[in-house]
Amino acid sequence: MKLVSVGTVAFDAIETPFGKTDKIVGGACTYISLSASYFNDNPKLISVVGDDFPNDTIDLLHSKNIDTEGLQIKEGEKTFFWSGKYHQDMNSRDTIDTQLNVLETFDPIVPESYYDCDILMLGNLTPAVQMKVIKQLPKRPKLIALDTMDFWMQIALDDLLNVIKEIDLLTINDEEARLLSGELSLKKAANKILTMGPKYLIIKKGEHGALLFDKNNRIFSAPALLLEEVFDPTGAGDTFAGGFMGYLSSQEEINWDTMKKAIIVGSAMASFTVEKFGIERLVSLSQSEIDTRINQFREMTRF
Amino acid sequence: MKLVSVGTVAFDAIETPFGKTDKIVGGACTYISLSASYFNDNPKLISVVGDDFPNDTIDLLHSKNIDTEGLQIKEGEKTFFWSGKYHQDMNSRDTIDTQLNVLETFDPIVPESYYDCDILMLGNLTPAVQMKVIKQLPKRPKLIALDTMDFWMQIALDDLLNVIKEIDLLTINDEEARLLSGELSLKKAANKILTMGPKYLIIKKGEHGALLFDKNNRIFSAPALLLEEVFDPTGAGDTFAGGFMGYLSSQEEINWDTMKKAIIVGSAMASFTVEKFGIERLVSLSQSEIDTRINQFREMTRF
Repeated sequence: MKLVSVGTVAFDAIETPFGKTDKIVGGACTYISLSASYFNDNPKLISVVGDDFPNDTIDLLHSKNIDTEGLQIKEGEKTFFWSGKYHQDMNSRDTIDTQLNVLETFDPIVPESYYDCDILMLGNLTPAVQMKVIKQLPKRPKLIALDTMDFWMQIALDDLLNVIKEIDLLTINDEEARLLSGELSLKKAANKILTMGPKYLIIKKGEHGALLFDKNNRIFSAPALLLEEVFDPTGAGDTFAGGFMGYLSSQEEINWDTMKKAIIVGSAMASFTVEKFGIERLVSLSQSEIDTRINQFREMTRF
Repeated sequence: MKLVSVGTVAFDAIETPFGKTDKIVGGACTYISLSASYFNDNPKLISVVGDDFPNDTIDLLHSKNIDTEGLQIKEGEKTFFWSGKYHQDMNSRDTIDTQLNVLETFDPIVPESYYDCDILMLGNLTPAVQMKVIKQLPKRPKLIALDTMDFWMQIALDDLLNVIKEIDLLTINDEEARLLSGELSLKKAANKILTMGPKYLIIKKGEHGALLFDKNNRIFSAPALLLEEVFDPTGAGDTFAGGFMGYLSSQEEINWDTMKKAIIVGSAMASFTVEKFGIERLVSLSQSEIDTRINQFREMTRF
């Protein structure tokens, strides 16, 4: 199935208890596309960068068979930049600096060659921008998935609720699920969110794994892999989404069974990303490394 | 296999966001024995109460085929009493009152009829008291399991480390695992704790489930059942331990496979306890309710 992802392609500067980086390549869509590229032979990307963005990285995306026709390169402008610092426990972080740059006026353009996509993954962005992408597609994809964050719930709730109505799958973390639903119990939160539009909901719980819910009251629980050390959590959620969507796009059908496997694949992919800074680990995986890790999940959960 | 459990039999007064109780029956050993009674035909109990403890409850224990020969009833003394209040999120609680009463001088006596026990479950108690029970057994059980808490790590660490050396399985929560090991990563914490004596470690993560570790670097992850409402978490950990040990005692062998199943059974049993105050839900379960719930865990994790 044809997979299109929308989101940021960016520079990050990251500090964790284990070290810090200068400007490195990041961005939701970068992680999503790279992760998906292990399962989809031509994942398509919609994003924007400035002319300061390295050609080497675009070449790298091409080397992974990622289609960048939807990547706008703005002459004389600068790429989105985010800088953050993780606390000792890695579960929380402070934003040090955000420079929107090209993102401020980002107007996504869906190339015609993307029109017949089967799966659309809307990475975390302004809800109005996410909506613009949906509206450009002449034919509704089989699956529209959307990732978002607490920030949009606080400053653009109406826009967010509007776009949530149009989608099939929402991915958020546990605190965001509580915020969006006003419910403390994740079960109640999920039930409420599933009345807002989506047929499926994924609640990401970081080191505690992820939960998949559907409208028929079914729940699937995926653990997170226990790592000796989480080196840098940046991009884990997007890598998860990319693995999830990539795997789904490689299947004949999108149903409960393929989604359960997809959530394990996403979790396995995310467990690689956090082992090093940025995309370093994600760009150099072998199929056997991925298979071994998926097997670890099977061992961890099968009784 | 013969199962002996040691721990408190007590009165609790509990306040949660859903209501509050007067003095009701509680105590680690009460929950452990009741939970185990669904899998073992004669779980044996070692504990102490005052003469204020209701005969009705002792009759109830007998009706579940729980052997109370090891229950000391102290004339003219009062039963251990604990009172606590849970916060909105149910993950933290304040102790309002603790009256040790009979517990202050508790000297556990193992009846001769318990001597040939196969599984010994040491519920949360003063580590020195837990050690006294081990020392009275003329023959080492096949499995000695111990539950403890942060309090003993803070005020009786040496005694605790001494008794931990003697056991096979330790059950603690995630924060306690971090405290005991000095490691933030649960994987590192587990590896370190497994050098202190036990062959197996269970880390309880409340609403995020539980993890089982062994010395061969194997990890099993059990989710918690997602409930609409956790009504009263009191006794959940002890119910878990009772279900775990009870199930193990019903098996031919204690090994990785039976332990994995046992952790699911324990989780299923705990999911009942939290649905009502105190032991109310736990005393009235049917085998088919238990089987249905264990199946829900299978559905939740099988991919």
